[in-house]
Amino acid sequence: MKSCKKIVLAYSGGLDTTTAIPWLKEQTGAEIVALAIDVGQADNFEEALKRALHAGVVQAEVLDAKEEYAQDFLLPAIQANALYEGVYPLLSALSRPLIVEKLVQAAAQIGADAVAHGCTGKGNDQLRFELSLAALAPHLTVLAPARHWGMTREDAFAYAQGKGLNLALKPGTLYSIDENLWGRAIECGPLEDPWTEPPADAFALTAEAAQAPDAAVELTIDFEQGVPTALNGTPMPPLDLIAEVSVCAGAHGVGRIDHMENRTVGIKSREVYECPAGVALIQAHKALESLVLTKDEARFKAQVETRWAELVYEGKWHAPLKQSLDAFISATQATVTGSVRLKLYKGTLQVVGRRSPYALYDTNLTTYGDGDTFDHTAADGYLKLAAMELATLARVHAGQSALTQETHDDRTVVAQPVS
Amino acid sequence: MKSCKKIVLAYSGGLDTTTAIPWLKEQTGAEIVALAIDVGQADNFEEALKRALHAGVVQAEVLDAKEEYAQDFLLPAIQANALYEGVYPLLSALSRPLIVEKLVQAAAQIGADAVAHGCTGKGNDQLRFELSLAALAPHLTVLAPARHWGMTREDAFAYAQGKGLNLALKPGTLYSIDENLWGRAIECGPLEDPWTEPPADAFALTAEAAQAPDAAVELTIDFEQGVPTALNGTPMPPLDLIAEVSVCAGAHGVGRIDHMENRTVGIKSREVYECPAGVALIQAHKALESLVLTKDEARFKAQVETRWAELVYEGKWHAPLKQSLDAFISATQATVTGSVRLKLYKGTLQVVGRRSPYALYDTNLTTYGDGDTFDHTAADGYLKLAAMELATLARVHAGQSALTQETHDDRTVVAQPVS
Amino acid sequence: MKSCKKIVLAYSGGLDTTTAIPWLKEQTGAEIVALAIDVGQADNFEEALKRALHAGVVQAEVLDAKEEYAQDFLLPAIQANALYEGVYPLLSALSRPLIVEKLVQAAAQIGADAVAHGCTGKGNDQLRFELSLAALAPHLTVLAPARHWGMTREDAFAYAQGKGLNLALKPGTLYSIDENLWGRAIECGPLEDPWTEPPADAFALTAEAAQAPDAAVELTIDFEQGVPTALNGTPMPPLDLIAEVSVCAGAHGVGRIDHMENRTVGIKSREVYECPAGVALIQAHKALESLVLTKDEARFKAQVETRWAELVYEGKWHAPLKQSLDAFISATQATVTGSVRLKLYKGTLQVVGRRSPYALYDTNLTTYGDGDTFDHTAADGYLKLAAMELATLARVHAGQSALTQETHDDRTVVAQPVS
Amino acid sequence: MKSCKKIVLAYSGGLDTTTAIPWLKEQTGAEIVALAIDVGQADNFEEALKRALHAGVVQAEVLDAKEEYAQDFLLPAIQANALYEGVYPLLSALSRPLIVEKLVQAAAQIGADAVAHGCTGKGNDQLRFELSLAALAPHLTVLAPARHWGMTREDAFAYAQGKGLNLALKPGTLYSIDENLWGRAIECGPLEDPWTEPPADAFALTAEAAQAPDAAVELTIDFEQGVPTALNGTPMPPLDLIAEVSVCAGAHGVGRIDHMENRTVGIKSREVYECPAGVALIQAHKALESLVLTKDEARFKAQVETRWAELVYEGKWHAPLKQSLDAFISATQATVTGSVRLKLYKGTLQVVGRRSPYALYDTNLTTYGDGDTFDHTAADGYLKLAAMELATLARVHAGQSALTQETHDDRTVVAQPVS
Repeated sequence: MKSCKKIVLAYSGGLDTTTAIPWLKEQTGAEIVALAIDVGQADNFEEALKRALHAGVVQAEVLDAKEEYAQDFLLPAIQANALYEGVYPLLSALSRPLIVEKLVQAAAQIGADAVAHGCTGKGNDQLRFELSLAALAPHLTVLAPARHWGMTREDAFAYAQGKGLNLALKPGTLYSIDENLWGRAIECGPLEDPWTEPPADAFALTAEAAQAPDAAVELTIDFEQGVPTALNGTPMPPLDLIAEVSVCAGAHGVGRIDHMENRTVGIKSREVYECPAGVALIQAHKALESLVLTKDEARFKAQVETRWAELVYEGKWHAPLKQSLDAFISATQATVTGSVRLKLYKGTLQVVGRRSPYALYDTNLTTYGDGDTFDHTAADGYLKLAAMELATLARVHAGQSALTQETHDDRTVVAQPVS
Repeated sequence: MKSCKKIVLAYSGGLDTTTAIPWLKEQTGAEIVALAIDVGQADNFEEALKRALHAGVVQAEVLDAKEEYAQDFLLPAIQANALYEGVYPLLSALSRPLIVEKLVQAAAQIGADAVAHGCTGKGNDQLRFELSLAALAPHLTVLAPARHWGMTREDAFAYAQGKGLNLALKPGTLYSIDENLWGRAIECGPLEDPWTEPPADAFALTAEAAQAPDAAVELTIDFEQGVPTALNGTPMPPLDLIAEVSVCAGAHGVGRIDHMENRTVGIKSREVYECPAGVALIQAHKALESLVLTKDEARFKAQVETRWAELVYEGKWHAPLKQSLDAFISATQATVTGSVRLKLYKGTLQVVGRRSPYALYDTNLTTYGDGDTFDHTAADGYLKLAAMELATLARVHAGQSALTQETHDDRTVVAQPVS
Repeated sequence: MKSCKKIVLAYSGGLDTTTAIPWLKEQTGAEIVALAIDVGQADNFEEALKRALHAGVVQAEVLDAKEEYAQDFLLPAIQANALYEGVYPLLSALSRPLIVEKLVQAAAQIGADAVAHGCTGKGNDQLRFELSLAALAPHLTVLAPARHWGMTREDAFAYAQGKGLNLALKPGTLYSIDENLWGRAIECGPLEDPWTEPPADAFALTAEAAQAPDAAVELTIDFEQGVPTALNGTPMPPLDLIAEVSVCAGAHGVGRIDHMENRTVGIKSREVYECPAGVALIQAHKALESLVLTKDEARFKAQVETRWAELVYEGKWHAPLKQSLDAFISATQATVTGSVRLKLYKGTLQVVGRRSPYALYDTNLTTYGDGDTFDHTAADGYLKLAAMELATLARVHAGQSALTQETHDDRTVVAQPVS
Repeated sequence: MKSCKKIVLAYSGGLDTTTAIPWLKEQTGAEIVALAIDVGQADNFEEALKRALHAGVVQAEVLDAKEEYAQDFLLPAIQANALYEGVYPLLSALSRPLIVEKLVQAAAQIGADAVAHGCTGKGNDQLRFELSLAALAPHLTVLAPARHWGMTREDAFAYAQGKGLNLALKPGTLYSIDENLWGRAIECGPLEDPWTEPPADAFALTAEAAQAPDAAVELTIDFEQGVPTALNGTPMPPLDLIAEVSVCAGAHGVGRIDHMENRTVGIKSREVYECPAGVALIQAHKALESLVLTKDEARFKAQVETRWAELVYEGKWHAPLKQSLDAFISATQATVTGSVRLKLYKGTLQVVGRRSPYALYDTNLTTYGDGDTFDHTAADGYLKLAAMELATLARVHAGQSALTQETHDDRTVVAQPVS
């Protein structure tokens, strides 16, 4: 264990970070300050701070970062339509770099020379902590007790009891949970079998579809430059808007995700999420973009979005590429202004309307009815040039090959069984 | 109008292609053969052929291509998880190159020197016809009467009536429909306003969510090398399996799509689809791939899929790049063998289980419980190298800059309103 | 021909745009103003304006846009390492959007309702004119006489002589040339045979390698945020620096390019360029980037560069995606500050040194000698995780397959001859 | 150190692998078999095997894998135009997976339970060994003595002398060299300063440009389906052709590369290569592809090539994605048949001609002279559609904004200095 004098511990109130307090004191002799960051999780912070103090920290603080989280992390995620592997709204991945920023600021303020986190060695969160720490504060010593103590969860519990720690474990908890304003991530227990449906008790923010209200509800979201600014016509700040959408979409069973995920550390895991606000707002934002972005922008932004989500997933929020992708994304949002109608019903989410002063959709160009202004004969020239290369190719090959009858088999390749 | 002696007309039985018969005869003096291709649309082909003969063709034929369509066009689309712009299952785009193959074969058999289609100048289908024709039969003259006759839909109707044509128009039809085994595309009428929800009468294959059964249903799809081979344990050929999934998913309200689409010809259009089989089978196939493909394969295949869908959308089924992408996709399917459980309920579609003999998921690596075989300390070395570049970067910049307090604003760029 | 009253003609002084003057007057009856834009071509503008006036324009002007061209078009091209298809420095493509900006400004100033250009129907320049015009001034009528008059080059010459035009054709000119500060593009004549080496007389800016000086020369280029700011230690503005590098690199035979190019309009053409400044400055800029960008940035920027070059090639300088890519590129240039040593000798260009205060290269991490600070054992953990997926895959497949002896044939596919 | 009984050591004959022999025996007590693989390096294998036996192996063998290397590794690299970061022809990266295949086969034949390699912890080669080993033989123990013994190069030398080893170190050797049929990689010593030009004595295969012959030479390479099959009209097998091109290009100074490279392990290093055959054959292959591939193929293949090179660089030759990319590449090579003329002179390499029976180049479409068959007026329709989106965009924005005078500044972003 590296030596240090004063440690800021990213404190969650759970088994691992509470257990880490006496363990780190034993291993390092350092003073420990527990810092809990409120990013919207449904925790009793007062109780948590008491547990930390009881476990031996010299100071325990909670910091309300919800507004900053909404403004500086969730809004960019909406603009990036951020879904890792096309499905995961990055809810844990988005909160960690903010927590690191707060740890680094706290370390500077109180003169700590080390920071500690409770991540294990097989997850992604260790990357999110340690890559952001490398980027922001390479001078700080980083301690990862849960990666080094070599205790199973049962060992840790026994150790904690031996130390007389005040733990808040609910008996029979099967799941490992991470939660914030964006939603909940649920792992472990029965979810480890990917052939089994997630049990109903895994979920807390979203209704079972069959239990959701029998009447559909419709939400209208207004956006300005890619930022949601009003819900059903009422302007509200990002934090409030996200929280309201979360409650409403969750009540209608929207936002459940069940995914086999490729972790950065080289393993697959079955991950279950409920992310009602993220799913609803990203879908609304995409729908508005489909009305105002050019085809070229839409295609390239999709690639940028994929890369953005990968970087954030891998812990590279503070990396230069992430920041350059942000510049691209910001530039595309100038015209993403308008409104989207969402319909929610028993687990379904449908975009049923979208409009914008910057819509590139022109009914007169599209209609087949009266008012058609499209020049149909222009297509003759267009097609002539569009088909020229394939026609040249066909003529070139005509010397070598007669027209095949079964043309779609040409040059195809059939997968062989793994022998 | 180019001169020609004998024309094979891709005949749909509708207004445009029926009207084209006398019009083409007048313009070219050529004999016309009407060829209807059955790709699974719910048409009365007997009546259609009668209409064509009545309108003046010398021969009218229907060709059952449903099996070929399922086998050679829809299976590759499943393996490619083919969704244009992430949502459109390409249902019209997939049928056109098959129709062109049949036209070209028919032209060769009957000695025709021209082919004709009923596409207008503003849609994508003209590209799908004419690019495949350029690739397969650059020697044939291509006639596109609906692009050249300069008649509105009303004009065409009047012209047809003047010719005494036998039309099968249902009064009050608001929509323009294209249909085949993969689903239905619905355009025009009230759908031209993107702010308005599609009316219930636009749909024929999918139930309204609220009207769907109150009990969820579960389907199990077995795949072998990326090909769905059995439904609920019963092996069946592709055509039957797709048809059964279509009926079941449609009955549960699954498969409706409402999309602002970027057409190839430079305009946006609002497109509504119902594609129950496509949506269900692609989602199942994706879920199985997420269990067996490596992370590298999954990421790159996603790019290949995007490009594959664009090419097919743009009419390049018979282009060399499409065929080379097929080779890539086929190679990735060697281990896409296993089963997927789908749950359908009032418009929702959830993957609730997936398994495979080739699953790269290993519970012992993932679990936090007993049996954890993951070497947590290996992460130390991993993180050290993974973070090295960012730490180097931070140290290099340390000479130039103090640690910023508000680090996430670093180098970001804010979109400006369009002035 | 569309009707109009006053036309601004982008005037080059050559056969096509001079001939266009009487032809446009005859066809439209409009007044014509000739506008020549000086982007660094070696033209006698005074003579050119006389020719235009003699041909019948009401006004003829030359506008010096060289500094603007260097600053606003060539610097971004350097930052984008802009090479279409990896080789073509876009020299014609970069000048056209600037010319269009000047045309549009002139049209506004003099109250013209139309603009005209001399591009033919098979090249790329028509796209660059007309797409920028669509973006900047969709209200202006665009006239493209050379696409419509249906004259061969010989016809045009005869027509011009019939009109008594004062042409400046050098007898025996084999080539079609476009030139500006960035270099020269050479087409036609003997170059149309791609199996034949370009004759020596095709080149004007670059020495034949064998004729270049026997002594190598070294240039040092300083960059600040991706912008070249000094040559051999002497600060100079972009226009002067580019001009000096052009002369020096050209004298040493650097910058010749011989390329089979995919035009936007669906044909291939053999294009020969000499672009000494572009080749030298882009290579220097790349070398500096390789020292300061992170691996992630370098990889993604390469994709952005490819797309940037395609867009500019295709005439989309003023398209939104191009502008959003600019935002990305600008963000990456913050640390591209430092110096690069180039060695030029008889057609070769070598980067022989690069340095930067932001270099991410750290000798102590790289060296195998004294001072090695790299933690070699960290690689153990890194490799364990890096190899985990492939090891899992191998174990999973072990049940199905013995270790193959000829493992590199596994799942490969052999190209078949075109039958 | 993991326990094992019999080790196959990948033996190079150099300091590290010779020193590893007594060190591994001490650490493991296992029998060691030294296996040297001849992939074209200019080594005295007889002497090397004697050194290994003297150092204590029970068996020492050399295996001639040159033909296999040329056929199964270098030909695919040519077809993939394989250049990591656009410049490095992967010469070390290509040989390692072949060496691993031979190690694994040898281990199976002699019943070894472990393999060993001499790679350090900061290079890429350890990845190439250990990822291929994970893919092919996850049951084998892998030993990496140079990563674990904690000796500097000086320590290792002293240890070797203490053991009385017979080393073949040339006094004053400054460089670390890896060599095979594809070329030479040179590291260390004066090359560690990226501001300094590589000294002349770093090179062995390529002439200094100024020392190269005064007369240019021309080579004609014939390809069949992407494979070079004849040199100057003489058919020859891949091994012979590559070796002859290497000698000729090297003699003319072609193939030197000086690169700041992003290693996989998170550091940059300055790498100098000489790879005359690789540089010449890849450039010739690219030139032929530019004549026969469609634009779509060319653009997408460039992305595949980049990924292929990254995967091989990172040690993933035996990974599924690499094999699926091979399937794509093979499919593209069906028409890459024809000839390319290369001109070599004092360090320059120019493609001066290319031809193919499958050339998509059509002089009649391209020419501006007699015989022009291109329909210039088709461009009218093409441009109308190509410009429609930008014109729509401009009209939509016209309500919000007057035509800007300085349009190219619209939405651009300026990089800020790192503060």
